Amino acid sequence: MTITGATRVYALLGDPLHKARSPEHFNGVIARAGMHSVLVPLEVSNESFDPLVGALKSTRNFDGFILTMPYKQSMLKHLDRLGPAASKVGVVNVARRDPDGRWSGEIFDGVGYVDALRAKGVDVRGKSACIKGCGAVARAMTVALAEAGLARLVASDLQAAQEQALVALLNTHFPALACEAGEMQPDRFDIAINATPLGMAEGDPLPFEPLAKVVSDVTTKPEITPLLARARERGCTITSGADMFNGQAARIAAFFGWQ
Amino acid sequence: MTITGATRVYALLGDPLHKARSPEHFNGVIARAGMHSVLVPLEVSNESFDPLVGALKSTRNFDGFILTMPYKQSMLKHLDRLGPAASKVGVVNVARRDPDGRWSGEIFDGVGYVDALRAKGVDVRGKSACIKGCGAVARAMTVALAEAGLARLVASDLQAAQEQALVALLNTHFPALACEAGEMQPDRFDIAINATPLGMAEGDPLPFEPLAKVVSDVTTKPEITPLLARARERGCTITSGADMFNGQAARIAAFFGWQ
Repeated sequence: MTITGATRVYALLGDPLHKARSPEHFNGVIARAGMHSVLVPLEVSNESFDPLVGALKSTRNFDGFILTMPYKQSMLKHLDRLGPAASKVGVVNVARRDPDGRWSGEIFDGVGYVDALRAKGVDVRGKSACIKGCGAVARAMTVALAEAGLARLVASDLQAAQEQALVALLNTHFPALACEAGEMQPDRFDIAINATPLGMAEGDPLPFEPLAKVVSDVTTKPEITPLLARARERGCTITSGADMFNGQAARIAAFFGWQ
Repeated sequence: MTITGATRVYALLGDPLHKARSPEHFNGVIARAGMHSVLVPLEVSNESFDPLVGALKSTRNFDGFILTMPYKQSMLKHLDRLGPAASKVGVVNVARRDPDGRWSGEIFDGVGYVDALRAKGVDVRGKSACIKGCGAVARAMTVALAEAGLARLVASDLQAAQEQALVALLNTHFPALACEAGEMQPDRFDIAINATPLGMAEGDPLPFEPLAKVVSDVTTKPEITPLLARARERGCTITSGADMFNGQAARIAAFFGWQ
């Protein structure tokens, strides 16, 4: 990669970022595509997020953002348009300057997950799933599952308000999906998903017993959580946070034209 | 160069930047030094300069700026300290986060020029020089010449106020230098310097006849201006804008610790 005065710049915004995988991955994609662009990590503080985004948007050779924790929602007010997933999920993980100069955002966590399932031979049409954790990543995943034809979903969260909000969101946009709040009973579903941080720290209890045919986790570090390790021992099909990342990475590259 | 989530980021701020040489040069220096850093060009608009600088200063993995036109002066108000040259010249071309968290700036255009002269075998101690153009780059060059022991200087500018300001600056800081405003008479001086943009555009008249022993120009595009071409034909020692750039580039790398 050669950076010159004419290089187009993209930023990954988040805090912390020192373990983020996107810069190395996407700069490799950019280099292989022969683009004259670069993605840099900017570990910006919360109070500087808005001024930084505003200033970068009006920087002539700056073309896009990748957003990670805690800025996936903070970005919304800086955008002119949202893609179909972002408009339902209410958060974005990418934003770009469109050819007309406006800024548009989208979230690919969900389709990345469905792509990861497909890569493991899992077609979600007509299937049932249960999910533990009803935060932003769960919203993205379940919206994409519903788009892909999931038939039934049970959502579970310690916070009843989050749980209800997810169910309401899905019932509004996907009347064909049978969706309700409830306990995790993985043995009664085709797919069981952990969308909580349980499994990131050593000694965490399992979020649930991996008794479904397909078991998915969102954590990237470790890639194989205790939940996934146990599921694999049982012969379940598994998808990891890394699988999701790989799934959405191709979508993000296409969004930015890095191909 | 591999950019990861832990890479330290530096920015070149200016407008326009698409022909800037610094990003390619310094990213090469960084790579050869084995540093885990990257310099990106940000062609920021005038109204976004202050918010961008403010936000980048509080970005945890952001460590420094290189400033070019028109932002060498705009940067001053964002700094806590100035180096010896910058404090006299009143502009900076570099700024960094010091170990104590404060921001310091310096300008290396002038010492870069004196280094370029030295590389051509020219020792300025006791010598005389005349300079056409009394803007920021002329201030930097003449302050460095005075520091290096120049004995006599005549400064010339179409704007009498600029001319007087430069003379006053030099007389204040360097009482041992005989400095006055006056006409360009290159044949009466050891060194004749063009610090105006004349020579950048095709068809520009020569800024002066290159009749001194040493003739210097500040323009980098073209590297050999008509003034320098004629001086070379006459057997003068010449230094170009590219020579100045190379001279100051080593100083800038040291300032940022890229070595």
